[in-house]
Amino acid sequence: MKSGELKMGWARQYMPVLGEIRKKFEAEKPLAGQKIGMALHIEAKTAVLVETLAAGGAEVYITGCNPLSTQDDVAEALDRVKGVHCYAQRACSNEDYYAAIDKVLDQNPTVTIDDGMDLIHRLHTGRRELLDNIVGGCEETTTGIHRLRAMAADGALEFPVIAVNDTPMKRCFDNVHGTGESALSAVMITTNSLIGGKWFVVAGYGYCGRGLAKMAHGLGAKVVVTEIDPRRALEAHMDGYHVMSMAEAAKIGDIFVTTTGNTSVISEKDFRNMKDGVILSNAGHFNVEIDIPWLEANKDGYEARDSIETYIIDNKRINILAEGRLVNLATMKGMGHPIEVMDLSFALQALCSDYILREGPGLTGGVYEVPNEIDVSVASIKLKSLGVEIDRLTEEQEHYMNSWDIGT
Amino acid sequence: MKSGELKMGWARQYMPVLGEIRKKFEAEKPLAGQKIGMALHIEAKTAVLVETLAAGGAEVYITGCNPLSTQDDVAEALDRVKGVHCYAQRACSNEDYYAAIDKVLDQNPTVTIDDGMDLIHRLHTGRRELLDNIVGGCEETTTGIHRLRAMAADGALEFPVIAVNDTPMKRCFDNVHGTGESALSAVMITTNSLIGGKWFVVAGYGYCGRGLAKMAHGLGAKVVVTEIDPRRALEAHMDGYHVMSMAEAAKIGDIFVTTTGNTSVISEKDFRNMKDGVILSNAGHFNVEIDIPWLEANKDGYEARDSIETYIIDNKRINILAEGRLVNLATMKGMGHPIEVMDLSFALQALCSDYILREGPGLTGGVYEVPNEIDVSVASIKLKSLGVEIDRLTEEQEHYMNSWDIGT
Amino acid sequence: MKSGELKMGWARQYMPVLGEIRKKFEAEKPLAGQKIGMALHIEAKTAVLVETLAAGGAEVYITGCNPLSTQDDVAEALDRVKGVHCYAQRACSNEDYYAAIDKVLDQNPTVTIDDGMDLIHRLHTGRRELLDNIVGGCEETTTGIHRLRAMAADGALEFPVIAVNDTPMKRCFDNVHGTGESALSAVMITTNSLIGGKWFVVAGYGYCGRGLAKMAHGLGAKVVVTEIDPRRALEAHMDGYHVMSMAEAAKIGDIFVTTTGNTSVISEKDFRNMKDGVILSNAGHFNVEIDIPWLEANKDGYEARDSIETYIIDNKRINILAEGRLVNLATMKGMGHPIEVMDLSFALQALCSDYILREGPGLTGGVYEVPNEIDVSVASIKLKSLGVEIDRLTEEQEHYMNSWDIGT
Amino acid sequence: MKSGELKMGWARQYMPVLGEIRKKFEAEKPLAGQKIGMALHIEAKTAVLVETLAAGGAEVYITGCNPLSTQDDVAEALDRVKGVHCYAQRACSNEDYYAAIDKVLDQNPTVTIDDGMDLIHRLHTGRRELLDNIVGGCEETTTGIHRLRAMAADGALEFPVIAVNDTPMKRCFDNVHGTGESALSAVMITTNSLIGGKWFVVAGYGYCGRGLAKMAHGLGAKVVVTEIDPRRALEAHMDGYHVMSMAEAAKIGDIFVTTTGNTSVISEKDFRNMKDGVILSNAGHFNVEIDIPWLEANKDGYEARDSIETYIIDNKRINILAEGRLVNLATMKGMGHPIEVMDLSFALQALCSDYILREGPGLTGGVYEVPNEIDVSVASIKLKSLGVEIDRLTEEQEHYMNSWDIGT
Repeated sequence: MKSGELKMGWARQYMPVLGEIRKKFEAEKPLAGQKIGMALHIEAKTAVLVETLAAGGAEVYITGCNPLSTQDDVAEALDRVKGVHCYAQRACSNEDYYAAIDKVLDQNPTVTIDDGMDLIHRLHTGRRELLDNIVGGCEETTTGIHRLRAMAADGALEFPVIAVNDTPMKRCFDNVHGTGESALSAVMITTNSLIGGKWFVVAGYGYCGRGLAKMAHGLGAKVVVTEIDPRRALEAHMDGYHVMSMAEAAKIGDIFVTTTGNTSVISEKDFRNMKDGVILSNAGHFNVEIDIPWLEANKDGYEARDSIETYIIDNKRINILAEGRLVNLATMKGMGHPIEVMDLSFALQALCSDYILREGPGLTGGVYEVPNEIDVSVASIKLKSLGVEIDRLTEEQEHYMNSWDIGT
Repeated sequence: MKSGELKMGWARQYMPVLGEIRKKFEAEKPLAGQKIGMALHIEAKTAVLVETLAAGGAEVYITGCNPLSTQDDVAEALDRVKGVHCYAQRACSNEDYYAAIDKVLDQNPTVTIDDGMDLIHRLHTGRRELLDNIVGGCEETTTGIHRLRAMAADGALEFPVIAVNDTPMKRCFDNVHGTGESALSAVMITTNSLIGGKWFVVAGYGYCGRGLAKMAHGLGAKVVVTEIDPRRALEAHMDGYHVMSMAEAAKIGDIFVTTTGNTSVISEKDFRNMKDGVILSNAGHFNVEIDIPWLEANKDGYEARDSIETYIIDNKRINILAEGRLVNLATMKGMGHPIEVMDLSFALQALCSDYILREGPGLTGGVYEVPNEIDVSVASIKLKSLGVEIDRLTEEQEHYMNSWDIGT
Repeated sequence: MKSGELKMGWARQYMPVLGEIRKKFEAEKPLAGQKIGMALHIEAKTAVLVETLAAGGAEVYITGCNPLSTQDDVAEALDRVKGVHCYAQRACSNEDYYAAIDKVLDQNPTVTIDDGMDLIHRLHTGRRELLDNIVGGCEETTTGIHRLRAMAADGALEFPVIAVNDTPMKRCFDNVHGTGESALSAVMITTNSLIGGKWFVVAGYGYCGRGLAKMAHGLGAKVVVTEIDPRRALEAHMDGYHVMSMAEAAKIGDIFVTTTGNTSVISEKDFRNMKDGVILSNAGHFNVEIDIPWLEANKDGYEARDSIETYIIDNKRINILAEGRLVNLATMKGMGHPIEVMDLSFALQALCSDYILREGPGLTGGVYEVPNEIDVSVASIKLKSLGVEIDRLTEEQEHYMNSWDIGT
Repeated sequence: MKSGELKMGWARQYMPVLGEIRKKFEAEKPLAGQKIGMALHIEAKTAVLVETLAAGGAEVYITGCNPLSTQDDVAEALDRVKGVHCYAQRACSNEDYYAAIDKVLDQNPTVTIDDGMDLIHRLHTGRRELLDNIVGGCEETTTGIHRLRAMAADGALEFPVIAVNDTPMKRCFDNVHGTGESALSAVMITTNSLIGGKWFVVAGYGYCGRGLAKMAHGLGAKVVVTEIDPRRALEAHMDGYHVMSMAEAAKIGDIFVTTTGNTSVISEKDFRNMKDGVILSNAGHFNVEIDIPWLEANKDGYEARDSIETYIIDNKRINILAEGRLVNLATMKGMGHPIEVMDLSFALQALCSDYILREGPGLTGGVYEVPNEIDVSVASIKLKSLGVEIDRLTEEQEHYMNSWDIGT
């Protein structure tokens, strides 16, 4: 077997939820006649989602959503799947990157699936002539959703988009466990550095941040959390972490991971306060959280190790992983999120694609939540695959929960 | 100093947020001329809230909200505070309990503060003539809120009530850390049993349940979680706990704590499957989660130890703590929630009492959320008291968060 | 049933290892005709050991080993057991304390069982005429053993003593889990203070200290460790704790627990650096770790709460638990070690008492280790009671482990 | 700079203890005129040890100690260091592997440094003529030491060897943290599998096993421990893990890591009981813990992914990592132990090499412990590099610790 197909086989082994949906799609062909345009990280797990959609009867056109996350052998394997056309290439130029996005759109898709709203952004700026044909879209990341909401608030979003990221099944698993485990292991493998005993700084205590904090703590790190929200800050404090401003954290931290979704979270004044040999990385969607443009403009860097660029400031080494891009995807050794969490997230994508095709025509432009019954069904399929049984409310319990006249 | 006053002095030491509010209330007297009716657990921390309200200029009339949680020396000390009248007595009869609630209402209060909606329930059933005078109320617990919402849905709630429990500052601290730590230490002290290595069953994976699970886990227990919600069940699974039905948990559990807010979570069929020497307790608001009426009706019990009743079923000892009432409050050695978390919850109560008096007249009957600025302000005062500084968004960051046209 | 007997019944329920030994002792009467002198903490778990020894045929004479740890109802219940004579009384004067020790020795015992070497110390100083009759002894604590070794090094120890404390089964369970859980819950219950988010200072990173550190960490504390041994200090650092000198820890700590077995670990210069409201307690054997004599001599204290004495230094409250005595035993609400760990430690005591009576006559004065087969047998009985099966070496594996010529 | 030199520069950055020793060695040249023969894993950290020895004046001859762990660019860089000669090559044949060992010995070294006793084994079997010239040796691993002790017990060990592995500084850091973190991250990266929620089976609860168990637990796994020692089994139980026989563990485990140092810990009967898709790996020194010869002889395997071989048994996929060799070193993405722990272990090696050259001539053949003062000095240098200050005993405290006549 070729390496792309082997990788897909490996992933399929740990994706029981998509497996269950594929069986159903194969039998019912709910996507027959549809064209789906996608821009996602091209690796084995995405490929299992794509083949599931194709099994449902769709033609799928796909490219990457990050110049460094594409795995070429998987891209080739995908292109060999019946009904699938893949245009992604690793480490392509910016020009080629956007050309591939246009190739996907050229096919005139009815549905978009994005991880960072690249397709939707392009559709609303340079390819507005295609908007009429779109029934709806799905968006995978926090950051993408955030920008879609800003766009909708401006009245600029022309079709309904399901915020796959905003749903409990995504936040509680993909963000907490997926980012947590994969960013941590990517840092470990890329640097060969010990976590135990280190000052490990997590910027942002949202879902991604708290997963990462908990896991670094579990390996013996002293975890520092920086936040802008007083309540989240207090939560982090009571969970046993050290809460402080980034200005203070910069002075003591050994390893930094940003998860805020915001820009310039670590910047010049922080670099200057840092210790020799610090390790900086980003687990948020875009490479804006660490102010690398300032480093590039002001300091000479050298590649100290695969996926590590070192800059010297005041005689101290500042080590940046993966150019500040998503550390779990963009490092040479990073594999992206663990297979099992992508099984959940992509099961949502598969079911939401089906849903938006059915319901989209009746919806106006805007951001929509994942329907609750889809969200719950993914959890139920997963529990079933684990052989886990849970309780159901008895009639007496349902009655009790709905009454207010049963006393102390 | 008398013991009640000493206890209040001890609590005041660890309640910096209420301390800050008291200073403000003393200077501004925002509650001057108001009558506040309260039914809360009568112990030192509550007393610090009560004196804070009195410092704001209010007359306060208070009784207990659970027959077993009143501390008589604190009740007496409270009654000695200027402007405060306390009617609670430990272990009083059911008749006296409700008589004390009526005494509070007899004063014709303008505001109610409840922990389990006893005052509100009584007002809407036997004392409807007093409803006109009420501006609004505050409710402390999950369970109380749940019943208030049911009542509001029936159109039966006649005045606005702030759901203090539903706000982030309450759920994330009082429920997670307060219930977690205090229920665990109450079980440990009441039973003298080891937690390390035990099968520790937590019924319900809401805020209370996940706090408790994490802490029992932190002491070395093997934690089992039972749930009715597939998503919460899956969260518990990925957090490292054992998820199963109560029927299965009953067979292996050593220690059980219920936190569901529902009825008959542990019942006859479960008792029959349990091991000899199991320990059962409840950390939910009402004593309905373990089916003690069945035990009482069918088995002879004896008091094996302070706050422990033992029933023999099929030659196996089933040990029930505190008659299935709130284990952290109702056991002889339980002290209720830790002081520091009550400082947060009661700071909300103090600020919401002030708020409802100001805004209540403009609101219709129903359940209202804690205003976001009150919630955030409590977190900020607490962080300040800890000397913790956090970051603020720069203008550049605010701009970034509100834009959708900044690319990859 | 009387309260002492009820307490013993409760303890017996969670002591399966002693239960197994009691069955054997009852059948074989290995201690028939022997007199055993004991000075241990008098509470229910000790009582189950005592009744086990009596079941083996011995006459047992016992008193307490700490003026504040005796439970009078258990003392009375013990005195009612056939073959047992108990002289302990809670909160007795120093004079009565030592008189009770003499009463035990007056019976001319053949074996001593100590927790802090009170009997052995008295025998070697004021009661040397009784030494000839002694076959041997057992000592329970780290501190006692330490002093016995110093005594043996001086050639001053006249009979063989088994260092029950030094054996793996004691250190890894009684010290780590027993002290860890019970000291933590005693602090929580005595102070009603939250652990989450606090700076929790553990002095000493021996077995007791590391158990306590791990558990406080498990509840969300930021744990500080002080040490004098560089290797242990580095272990604590890599385990995720904050290692610093006591001088530094004094400035930031909220809660302190000493576990060093040494004197003046916290003293005047530290008191002066502490924050208002700090909580100081000791989990080491003797009340010398916190320099209370200095506080007593220089500051006025008052009882702020059951088992808490508050001293004011430079306007700051320094709160001392249980007069610096063992916090898990000497606080009003402390119950001592959890039952299950005492089951292990006391099973060792029971088996070692039997052993020293058989083997003692052949041994010279000195400190002896618990025989390995006794140590292992206690673990095996416990695992069996839990229904836990473990692996055994195959012949092939035994061969492999003993060979050096099997290559890479 | 070439890639080998860059890797060495990266490692040097996180090795402050060797850095301190290198400074001293450069100044004092204590190894001048000596020849050191080494067989260690050839990667950047080892290279920093080697250059430290060379800085001390020695000629160093080195090869690998595992056919799969050599990094060729580092081997080449080492060979370019003045005074160093490196013969290792990745993935060489068995024949070449042993030829390289002979090349090292051909140089007639005075000291050996082994990781798995390959040099010592060869010296005592095929190259006995060289024994006379050897002053002594150092051995790095548990397994090597074990076999050396067996050899010494047979009277077969001809020169003194320091058991670097048996010393606290090695066991508590290299084994616990080094193996723990690196084996875990190697499994994560090689498989892209989630740890949270998984049944993670650790065979053996020695230092390596307990580090690994704690860390997998810290990421949310349900940890199973298998053991042959009842005391260790009980420790694992009370630490919160699931203790059972491998026969039982085989039925439920998702991921297995062996750390026993023994043979055939997982064998045919276990393979047959396993679930589809299980992941098996080894973190013990030799590839004998999983019975791969049986798999090879009876089943067809295929390479499912880099460093993963899949065998099909009864329709279930059994996935073996790195052919059962050390998972943290032998997988394509594994980097070996974290740099900081190797800094400690290799500091011991450097100081012990110096020591054995000075003291070896006075010692007979046998296994010797690392001198306590060397062990402590490494911890002290490390603490100093971290800026951590610890306490020192006062005179009063030293006196107290040495006396037995200070009462209760």
